[in-house]
Amino acid sequence: MKEPHVAPEPRCIVESELDYGYHPEMVDDFSRPRFFYDCCSSFLQCSVPPVMAFHLGSLGFLTPFKFESYKTEVAKVFEGNAAITLRSRLKVKVVKDIEQQQEQNGLLPHGHTNSETGKVTLQLQVLNEVVVDRGPSSYLSNVDLYLDGRLITSVQGDGVIVSTPTGSTAYAAAAGASMIHPNVPAIMVTPICPHSLSFRPIVVPAGVELMITLSPDARNTAWVSFDGRKRQEIQHGDCIKITTSCYPVPSICCHDLVYDWFESLAQCLHWNVRKRQNRLADISDSSDTEN
Amino acid sequence: MKEPHVAPEPRCIVESELDYGYHPEMVDDFSRPRFFYDCCSSFLQCSVPPVMAFHLGSLGFLTPFKFESYKTEVAKVFEGNAAITLRSRLKVKVVKDIEQQQEQNGLLPHGHTNSETGKVTLQLQVLNEVVVDRGPSSYLSNVDLYLDGRLITSVQGDGVIVSTPTGSTAYAAAAGASMIHPNVPAIMVTPICPHSLSFRPIVVPAGVELMITLSPDARNTAWVSFDGRKRQEIQHGDCIKITTSCYPVPSICCHDLVYDWFESLAQCLHWNVRKRQNRLADISDSSDTEN
Amino acid sequence: MKEPHVAPEPRCIVESELDYGYHPEMVDDFSRPRFFYDCCSSFLQCSVPPVMAFHLGSLGFLTPFKFESYKTEVAKVFEGNAAITLRSRLKVKVVKDIEQQQEQNGLLPHGHTNSETGKVTLQLQVLNEVVVDRGPSSYLSNVDLYLDGRLITSVQGDGVIVSTPTGSTAYAAAAGASMIHPNVPAIMVTPICPHSLSFRPIVVPAGVELMITLSPDARNTAWVSFDGRKRQEIQHGDCIKITTSCYPVPSICCHDLVYDWFESLAQCLHWNVRKRQNRLADISDSSDTEN
Amino acid sequence: MKEPHVAPEPRCIVESELDYGYHPEMVDDFSRPRFFYDCCSSFLQCSVPPVMAFHLGSLGFLTPFKFESYKTEVAKVFEGNAAITLRSRLKVKVVKDIEQQQEQNGLLPHGHTNSETGKVTLQLQVLNEVVVDRGPSSYLSNVDLYLDGRLITSVQGDGVIVSTPTGSTAYAAAAGASMIHPNVPAIMVTPICPHSLSFRPIVVPAGVELMITLSPDARNTAWVSFDGRKRQEIQHGDCIKITTSCYPVPSICCHDLVYDWFESLAQCLHWNVRKRQNRLADISDSSDTEN
Repeated sequence: MKEPHVAPEPRCIVESELDYGYHPEMVDDFSRPRFFYDCCSSFLQCSVPPVMAFHLGSLGFLTPFKFESYKTEVAKVFEGNAAITLRSRLKVKVVKDIEQQQEQNGLLPHGHTNSETGKVTLQLQVLNEVVVDRGPSSYLSNVDLYLDGRLITSVQGDGVIVSTPTGSTAYAAAAGASMIHPNVPAIMVTPICPHSLSFRPIVVPAGVELMITLSPDARNTAWVSFDGRKRQEIQHGDCIKITTSCYPVPSICCHDLVYDWFESLAQCLHWNVRKRQNRLADISDSSDTEN
Repeated sequence: MKEPHVAPEPRCIVESELDYGYHPEMVDDFSRPRFFYDCCSSFLQCSVPPVMAFHLGSLGFLTPFKFESYKTEVAKVFEGNAAITLRSRLKVKVVKDIEQQQEQNGLLPHGHTNSETGKVTLQLQVLNEVVVDRGPSSYLSNVDLYLDGRLITSVQGDGVIVSTPTGSTAYAAAAGASMIHPNVPAIMVTPICPHSLSFRPIVVPAGVELMITLSPDARNTAWVSFDGRKRQEIQHGDCIKITTSCYPVPSICCHDLVYDWFESLAQCLHWNVRKRQNRLADISDSSDTEN
Repeated sequence: MKEPHVAPEPRCIVESELDYGYHPEMVDDFSRPRFFYDCCSSFLQCSVPPVMAFHLGSLGFLTPFKFESYKTEVAKVFEGNAAITLRSRLKVKVVKDIEQQQEQNGLLPHGHTNSETGKVTLQLQVLNEVVVDRGPSSYLSNVDLYLDGRLITSVQGDGVIVSTPTGSTAYAAAAGASMIHPNVPAIMVTPICPHSLSFRPIVVPAGVELMITLSPDARNTAWVSFDGRKRQEIQHGDCIKITTSCYPVPSICCHDLVYDWFESLAQCLHWNVRKRQNRLADISDSSDTEN
Repeated sequence: MKEPHVAPEPRCIVESELDYGYHPEMVDDFSRPRFFYDCCSSFLQCSVPPVMAFHLGSLGFLTPFKFESYKTEVAKVFEGNAAITLRSRLKVKVVKDIEQQQEQNGLLPHGHTNSETGKVTLQLQVLNEVVVDRGPSSYLSNVDLYLDGRLITSVQGDGVIVSTPTGSTAYAAAAGASMIHPNVPAIMVTPICPHSLSFRPIVVPAGVELMITLSPDARNTAWVSFDGRKRQEIQHGDCIKITTSCYPVPSICCHDLVYDWFESLAQCLHWNVRKRQNRLADISDSSDTEN
């Protein structure tokens, strides 16, 4: 993994949103609110400066700092009292097989054409996940998954999620994935409502090359999106190439990475550490969950 | 439940397809192949004659009979040697609130207008399920679920499946539902990739009135489909009303309902009853699954 | 189902405990605290009078009434303002095959011997579930499941749970079962950590006869318990017979069965109906869950 | 991680068993059949020589080689044509708090006493998992989980599994875990039938220090086992310390690690790569799975 190019000064990010983290806001220089994902996904497709993420409401997976006390928190960070963790991202390319589509459709696909190889590509860094799904169709999607050039399985179902450890607690969790600590160097592949009931999420080492295509016998196209954005159709002859990005996002920790992550897990999963500890003090008034 | 109006003569149905049962074929009078769901969903929106469903490939949940031996099988049925089971269906209505949409959009929705009440409705019988999902959007759908007029929960996620016991082994199973025998008088409600990790599929008594609307604070519309068909958008002010239909589908059993169902489950779930029984005879050559 | 013999006067039950409902307490005549399950399982093996169940702490699945206001609540019930729901129970028999065990062990099993048939039986009514598991062994249990006399599957794993709809929200839920409303006439069979990843909980009609035995090739014995009690070993030659009891437990509803059940589900599943409704009033201070 | 001390010559291991890998056999010097786990767990508690694992029946997760062709396969390996992968193990210590137990029981616990610190310890290397469960009790176990000395959650349920990536496809998979490639440096923590429905398996970086104790308010003891062995009771005052071992097991690959792992996954999960590829050749005779 290449050394990330880190800007000298931290930036501040405020995340205020409820759902899968699609709409977090960012305050850059405390003046312009921005979306965390806009920031990380769109503006900063290469190296990202250390980010310090505040939440406006309750604790989030990406936003350990309280906005109310931002002056104190920022001061502490500038004094150098801050641990930094690198959140891995995925580098994603969409490759369009222009020849095949010309044959099929009689016209050229939209987008920039690489005249030398006859391919059309989009390249992005994603922080949470790449989702390939059935889009507006009611029918199953059929996609093939390759690892380091070898077909490892076909996924028949609503789709498939390829996520970072950061993304493992977002959409992938809703689809049944285990939750991976951001420090584990891994990529997670999670089927969405797979037709095969024994298909499970799998975790592969960071750095492998994943590729997704429509299965040759797929009757419908599929749709791909990147951190919930830039949704587009995938047709026969297209492929999506995914690997670990060499530009992770350096995040400033509130306490330390272990504490911050488990604190947010505890909220998300309704873990009852403190409640149970209280109970010890007064074991007689227990009964908070029954049958 | 009203007595179903049953036609005097059985019809024959052939199901040949792989996926969630969207494309089965039907032979009516042994001449015209038809889709089972076309038949049950589109042509026979009221009473359905007893159906005898053949599979062209391997055993399916709805097609216990082998097509190869159809003459013998049909002869047996005409001799009266057949158990019949009633597969419940759901009666679904889509109600469009025309006034509200006029306000919102400044124009009338498509479809037939009921001039007296200002509503637009579609009414259907479904054999498997009604699916409400996020459609082409990348964002979560937010729908409210009412039971007998009372709001019981909001579902935030990819959507929600309301299914019959027959449908519990189709898409609902892929979304994590338990499998319900067709003789259990029940309706199943299954969230699809719910944001709340503790949300589970729930099973309510047949005959309740379910209603689904967009949540008041939903930012996106939702999409509804019926046995994978007639997909349409649901907007603020629309609602979907679902209850048990009084027109179940009488299905002719191959052996009996218990045997037929477990036989198909065993295939679907890779149950190993026979393999294990063989193993008893020759316990030394076992080892079919390891670690 | 035989008409339950209902005593003329309601009894009051207080449930105060946290876990699977193993230790609820009962107040009979407002003087002697008792366990609900002691009451229903041990004392009242035949007909049960209508029970009015209070919780001492937070709302439980079986205890909709608040103890603080018991005088008012009881008064209302005696005035006749109460809906009653019948919670089904399971009738369970343990049958010991004395001849086979004599051959195997050279001695008689413990318990009462039925001298005429050479069998030993225990008969119980359970409100939640019968659990067959691997007991103190580290190794998989292997049990065969019969429905109406026919072998339907073998379960290889930590064990199997046969539960009522009431029990579907207890241990069975922890093992992955869907949640069944108490009014659905059904029995649920849930594998515990099954070796086969595609094995799912199944729901069969109330009234079927289930039978569980050790698989012929099982190397270890299994253990059975009834609502968490009377735990005992099951050996080759033993069987457990389970069917719907003709003595359900009439429960006095606080509001009505639908409301009471969903209210308790909402607590258990952290459903956010009220929180969301509040949010509508003041949508600006939202952000209660992120990423 | 310390460099493993690798013996110069490979050993051969034959695994022949069906269940969670508890009873694989080993052939050492081609004469004495042995259990893989006996070998790795009991004899080789420090460094392990490269192992070449044969299966006697069908493909297993740990046994990529066919026994039928062992002479050819072994010859190839001695020629140097073999990739080796390091399968991580867990180092586990059981620490008994002798003082507290003396107070509680009035007697000394069994086992070797460390006279200096008043502790009793057992230390083991495990290849699959450490399981802490409720043992012969019907009641929930309550254990506390610490990471690097900090309480991160309490687990209320049937128990908890701490596994290697190798173990993620064994018992942990049955309890709902995702499947982790052996090359991912991670430890997996999987609750067994947790009372909290939102509790999910979590994946933490290799090298962290995990500690498990009975919760202070646990009413029952718990039981621990190591790769299904050496089962023992855990009481108040005891703790189990788990971290990544510095003695991984070097395994000789049949093809390469990616191929071997996905080949075994495909068998275990009934992945249909080849079936689908066949279908392409003759797409008309499809229908292998139906509704």
